[in-house]
Amino acid sequence: MAAERGPAMATCTAPVNIAVIKYWGKRDTDLILPINSSLSVTLHQDQLKTTTTAAASRDFTEDRLWLNGKEADVGHPRVQACLREVRRLARKRRGGGEDAAALSLSYKIHIASENNFPTAAGLASSAAGYACLVSALARLYGLEEELSEVARRGSGSACRSMFGGFVQWQRGERPDGTDSLALQVAPETHWPELRVLVLVVSGEKKPVGSTVGMQTSVETSPLLKHRAESVVPERLAQMMRHIQERDFEGFGQLAMRDSNQFHATCLDTFPPIFYLTDLSRQIIALAHRYNAHHGHTKVAYTFDAGPNAVIFALADTVAEFVEVVRRSFPPAATAFDAGPNAVIFALADTVAEFVEVVRRSFPPAANGDQFVRGLPVGSAALAGGALQAVGFPGVPDPCPAPQPGPGPQLVDDPSQHLLGADGLPRSRA
Amino acid sequence: MAAERGPAMATCTAPVNIAVIKYWGKRDTDLILPINSSLSVTLHQDQLKTTTTAAASRDFTEDRLWLNGKEADVGHPRVQACLREVRRLARKRRGGGEDAAALSLSYKIHIASENNFPTAAGLASSAAGYACLVSALARLYGLEEELSEVARRGSGSACRSMFGGFVQWQRGERPDGTDSLALQVAPETHWPELRVLVLVVSGEKKPVGSTVGMQTSVETSPLLKHRAESVVPERLAQMMRHIQERDFEGFGQLAMRDSNQFHATCLDTFPPIFYLTDLSRQIIALAHRYNAHHGHTKVAYTFDAGPNAVIFALADTVAEFVEVVRRSFPPAATAFDAGPNAVIFALADTVAEFVEVVRRSFPPAANGDQFVRGLPVGSAALAGGALQAVGFPGVPDPCPAPQPGPGPQLVDDPSQHLLGADGLPRSRA
Repeated sequence: MAAERGPAMATCTAPVNIAVIKYWGKRDTDLILPINSSLSVTLHQDQLKTTTTAAASRDFTEDRLWLNGKEADVGHPRVQACLREVRRLARKRRGGGEDAAALSLSYKIHIASENNFPTAAGLASSAAGYACLVSALARLYGLEEELSEVARRGSGSACRSMFGGFVQWQRGERPDGTDSLALQVAPETHWPELRVLVLVVSGEKKPVGSTVGMQTSVETSPLLKHRAESVVPERLAQMMRHIQERDFEGFGQLAMRDSNQFHATCLDTFPPIFYLTDLSRQIIALAHRYNAHHGHTKVAYTFDAGPNAVIFALADTVAEFVEVVRRSFPPAATAFDAGPNAVIFALADTVAEFVEVVRRSFPPAANGDQFVRGLPVGSAALAGGALQAVGFPGVPDPCPAPQPGPGPQLVDDPSQHLLGADGLPRSRA
Repeated sequence: MAAERGPAMATCTAPVNIAVIKYWGKRDTDLILPINSSLSVTLHQDQLKTTTTAAASRDFTEDRLWLNGKEADVGHPRVQACLREVRRLARKRRGGGEDAAALSLSYKIHIASENNFPTAAGLASSAAGYACLVSALARLYGLEEELSEVARRGSGSACRSMFGGFVQWQRGERPDGTDSLALQVAPETHWPELRVLVLVVSGEKKPVGSTVGMQTSVETSPLLKHRAESVVPERLAQMMRHIQERDFEGFGQLAMRDSNQFHATCLDTFPPIFYLTDLSRQIIALAHRYNAHHGHTKVAYTFDAGPNAVIFALADTVAEFVEVVRRSFPPAATAFDAGPNAVIFALADTVAEFVEVVRRSFPPAANGDQFVRGLPVGSAALAGGALQAVGFPGVPDPCPAPQPGPGPQLVDDPSQHLLGADGLPRSRA
């Protein structure tokens, strides 16, 4: 990384994760320490990922940050916490002295980050974003240690996006948070039949953001306190067994129960928080009817802090359930085919709205156009060939592929850096 | 009560009650013993009431039952439980021997019962119904003791309708249920400023009935167990203090929290039970915005096992909040004016539906026509003078009156009996 030839630069990608034992509530809001452990599935980056380039140069006059091509506040306390922690670890690694061969920690940095999915759609964008930021910074400074504790300082659930497959974020006991880390429960190759579908009910922003919402819950919900102390520990152990044994019946039942209990604690919050809508409830009812029809758990839903459903199913169930969803929400049920791993649907009346959200989330010069390419919005053609009508970039195959995905990845190809040799976003230049 | 001149007959009316500390879940489904104590407000019978006539005669050849003019199954286990218990108490009172002057316990009985509100609208019809049945039977057999324990055998919450004002149903400890009784916390005259408004969101039948729903919750919700054991005892004591002190701030806050927690336990049930709809949630949000605007608790909502809101407010707030509701849910927000105590609204698009429910709930010869008299369904006129457009029988004044209501009442006027001298429903004859 020769500073003379331009900025030192590193680019990484990081995945979204979906919790099946939910995180809701901090015991320390500054260090971001949770009131209970949680467990998630890392989604494959072929469909949903964040890409981040971090650059450092003696020529940079100030720290700068671009999100989806638009300059953002680099002074955000959570961004600063990640920067500070990474630099602290780098300094520690170098034994306090300045190594002439190493990148100077006094250089200003430029960061550019892009999601290939709409930020507003409640698809865990902050988890992927902070995992990616920390991964790119670590690479830039040559750190090789496990950094989930640092990612956690950006966004709690980001620590789980530092690993692929099935990941536990353990609560930890220490007040300084050094034992509040992510641990991989099983790699992404462990359960090749598991599939993840995302049903986009609404691309609207959440009525109450997670950060504010969860602290109101901690302060006002007696049920959340009980859940964190007495319900989650046992459920976490159960869920790990179900994953180890690839027991979809147990996994699916517990994922649904835990999603419902999380939303119950939101309702027990005062004033109450509602993330599920009538349409979310229709999806829940559909899943239960579908499972009842088959006499066992073929699909399982989970909802984060928003109305959009994430559906787990085994490979042999996906095509049939997709068809059931399409017929249950006429006339234009499905629209977003995310390729081999995840299928993203927009239900009924939300197609046009969701497309608008995608368009606004991605300025023309970013990658937004790739999402909406070829979509006949509002047209009757959606009802029929909708599954193929809009593909996420790259993978037109409507059949989901074999596995949950890996953790953050280094992008080796320098042409993929989001920042140019001048240290500014390439697409913006 | 001379048997020669026709059947012995007694007629009573009984009120609806609305729980502010909710009952959900039985520890004994046969005796109807609850997992926690509950507390309710008895509504005034000027607006909502059940009327029941019980008759006995040596000429009757079988027990018979009419509900809203239509013959129903007198063999229903809960009706039979009430009949059996009343007769057992009558027999005990008479010391086992047959008193020639008293009504023979071997006579068959005829019962006719009518609500002056739609049965399907989730307005605690079974509570008023069983309280009224037990009151009329007790009168028929000359019983004078407190009979909430018997009413409880018909429907748990019916025991609370055996008293006026503010009523606690205490859980009790004994396995035989003899200490699971209703107790009056304060009479209806205690808090003359308190008002009750009912906002009818939907007249549809519940997706899951209370009896089945609450037992599924007992079996599957860890949060319900915690609520019953650890949250309700303290809340009950708090609520009694708020009522004693006529502290609307405390009363309203706790009523809202407890309603939300009850619905949270429904969501924690598996499969989850949803009684609140998007429209219910809009009312909740409106109430919180209204209170935030005023800087303190001016209105409080509570929802039973259905989407319809019950709003508590003090007298000086009613007119303003009614206006806010009407403007928030255009174009035809309010429709049902229940007279001096309760105001019943149908929101927006539900007017036509609700009127249909009323029509179907009351066969032509019953009192249904009195509800819909003069209502220009679907007409724009509803928007303006809707509050006056449909009055509950008798009281056209749109301004609610001073107090919660009394318990069951004896109807002294024989012309008000629902059964004629032939022992058959008068309106049916």
